[in-house]
Amino acid sequence: MNIAIAQSGGPTCAINASLVGVFKQGLLTEEIDAIFGSINGIEGIINDELLNLKSMIKTNEDMELLRQTPSTMLGSCRYKLPDFESDPAVYEKILHTLTVHRIEIFVYIGGNDSMDTVVKLSAYLKNISSDIKVIGVPKTIDNDLPVTDHTPGFGSAAKYVAATVQEIIRDSSVYSIPSVTVIEIMGRHAGWLTASTCVLRANGEEAPHLIYLPEAEFSSEQFLEDVRKEMAKHKAVIVAVSEGISVSDGSSEEFQSGKVDNFGHKYLSGVGKYLERLVADRIGCKVRSIELNVMQRCSSHICSKTDIDEAERIGRHALSAALDGNTGQMMYFRRVSDIPYAVTIEMTEASNTANLEKMFPKEWISPEQNQVTDAAVSYFLPLIQGEVNILMKNGLPVHFQRPLQMR
Amino acid sequence: MNIAIAQSGGPTCAINASLVGVFKQGLLTEEIDAIFGSINGIEGIINDELLNLKSMIKTNEDMELLRQTPSTMLGSCRYKLPDFESDPAVYEKILHTLTVHRIEIFVYIGGNDSMDTVVKLSAYLKNISSDIKVIGVPKTIDNDLPVTDHTPGFGSAAKYVAATVQEIIRDSSVYSIPSVTVIEIMGRHAGWLTASTCVLRANGEEAPHLIYLPEAEFSSEQFLEDVRKEMAKHKAVIVAVSEGISVSDGSSEEFQSGKVDNFGHKYLSGVGKYLERLVADRIGCKVRSIELNVMQRCSSHICSKTDIDEAERIGRHALSAALDGNTGQMMYFRRVSDIPYAVTIEMTEASNTANLEKMFPKEWISPEQNQVTDAAVSYFLPLIQGEVNILMKNGLPVHFQRPLQMR
Repeated sequence: MNIAIAQSGGPTCAINASLVGVFKQGLLTEEIDAIFGSINGIEGIINDELLNLKSMIKTNEDMELLRQTPSTMLGSCRYKLPDFESDPAVYEKILHTLTVHRIEIFVYIGGNDSMDTVVKLSAYLKNISSDIKVIGVPKTIDNDLPVTDHTPGFGSAAKYVAATVQEIIRDSSVYSIPSVTVIEIMGRHAGWLTASTCVLRANGEEAPHLIYLPEAEFSSEQFLEDVRKEMAKHKAVIVAVSEGISVSDGSSEEFQSGKVDNFGHKYLSGVGKYLERLVADRIGCKVRSIELNVMQRCSSHICSKTDIDEAERIGRHALSAALDGNTGQMMYFRRVSDIPYAVTIEMTEASNTANLEKMFPKEWISPEQNQVTDAAVSYFLPLIQGEVNILMKNGLPVHFQRPLQMR
Repeated sequence: MNIAIAQSGGPTCAINASLVGVFKQGLLTEEIDAIFGSINGIEGIINDELLNLKSMIKTNEDMELLRQTPSTMLGSCRYKLPDFESDPAVYEKILHTLTVHRIEIFVYIGGNDSMDTVVKLSAYLKNISSDIKVIGVPKTIDNDLPVTDHTPGFGSAAKYVAATVQEIIRDSSVYSIPSVTVIEIMGRHAGWLTASTCVLRANGEEAPHLIYLPEAEFSSEQFLEDVRKEMAKHKAVIVAVSEGISVSDGSSEEFQSGKVDNFGHKYLSGVGKYLERLVADRIGCKVRSIELNVMQRCSSHICSKTDIDEAERIGRHALSAALDGNTGQMMYFRRVSDIPYAVTIEMTEASNTANLEKMFPKEWISPEQNQVTDAAVSYFLPLIQGEVNILMKNGLPVHFQRPLQMR
């Protein structure tokens, strides 16, 4: 039999490691012949655009390189599978591709939108009494998938963000005049990545002095009061803010671009700039805002070894689960303990995560709504541990290069 | 005798390594007793705010940590020393501090503005027949100091920028629709850092497809034509643009903030956003802009070993030069060869560099004004070689922590 793998949603540093996990397990499984990669997520299955991965990934070094290469080697999509009733033709196209290429297992690596595809496609296949299995492997830097303790990709993003915020702290404290630095961090609805900057406490940093999450209450006036209070204690005040906070005084319109993606998500941008202007206008001190932008999701040169290893491992387990006859499931991590850190890999109905978001726990937010508790530090710390031995050439990380047809 | 060291101007990853160089050479020099650090550049000398560095930096591990810590451990300033005639009192304050603390050598680590201080202060001291020596050590991520082959701090910035641009290339090519990504890189007048993204060629990358420097001609219409041409060849077009390009059609007003610092430099910002809007309005494809912001100057977790080692070495040489009786000089690198890479450390009158800027050579800019030649690759490549073995704790780089009084 043959199998197919696809990657979907926003890039992370770990999504290729999960691909390597499925691929390696495939190599070890005697009954599996071809391992196909679907170009641009489920779209490659719909349009019959498949790559023969065995002819692309040939050596152990290739696998190691791919593990270290950020973003999605197979491309991605934001395509939302329609309901069967409204567009049966799409399902027939998918079935055609799977059947023609004798694909009996399809592993879909993605976020909560991709799990929606796992749910719909596995239900359709069951319905027509097909034996083809569909399994979901989670990934997202947002860490907002339900059921799982955390998501592959998040640990590397958190490690980059914390290391970078620490460097910005150093950069912010050079001049003698008081200043405020606002760092805008990704997270449209869930504040996990912004909250994770609290790990700097473990290394003795006092900053970020203020942390604002979408899950907490926010008002511009309270923000200004918070900043003034911190300025009385620190020369250089560092603020970590999630892009997704909603400004209660109605001025949020000002900084939300209003663009909407295929899933109806609003693109937010500019809360950092908004707060910068607010501090400049109302406090009048030196102030700047910094957006960590896509570097948060693609800076594999400082990825978390824990994250990359786990991402590979969950990929291997996904294929094993499918070989065991499971379908419509998403693999997930269950944390056994913080110290020593240990997780097991389990599975759950993909419908338990599809289109759902897991928010940062309210009990880990300080009563003042501008910090997180030490319980959060214990949760985050294990996820950023360890460094991958990055292959360098000419002073730069080496990336796995895709076949020419995909560039 | 005692000596004093100060750091000035914008932070870099290498300015603390130069401090370590001066400090180490001081420890090795028998006639030197106290080694003072001046808080916030020359301001610490003026205001008699000195630290005893021997009581702060006690072990080899302290020195190694400091070498790896970005930004300026002693703080910085943007203070411009007035002419003696207009404000002799400042010079008397400086002389008072130096005399009271028996400081016979003052090493100033900084950019072209700081060299202005070296020139003025050394001239003043010579004029009053003082034996106190003043020596400048260059630093700037802009690489725009005359005489020297390159500046400490630049190599690390270039390594971060190239590694990050490479990751953004991966991030940009995941979706099937055509897109343009504009990456805005620091450089108010000189395009060295933006140009250095060409090193990615050494690892087989075709991007950045377009590179725009302040030293080249630029017009918005030509830019749009360039982008259209590249879009015909590549699905994801990557543009590296220096923050300092001037838009010839007069629309530059739109994106220049107009703020001016103590030295009369304009703060530029937003050329990336400007080009993003231009592409959106006139080409109408998916487009985004990314600002690498202060991460360019403080991301020591991916610093260049060549840069850090050289920064330390030039600091050691600076103290030796002062001990040999030199004053009013700036230390610099003379490149002996590209392959094998070799530099010697020389000195020049600080007046040869003060307030002057070295531009990216016009002969390294392509005739189309939108790329750089392979000669530039040969120049840049040696500067980003090698990785420092970063000390990690809890999954994060460890930074040298300043004394509490400075936080």
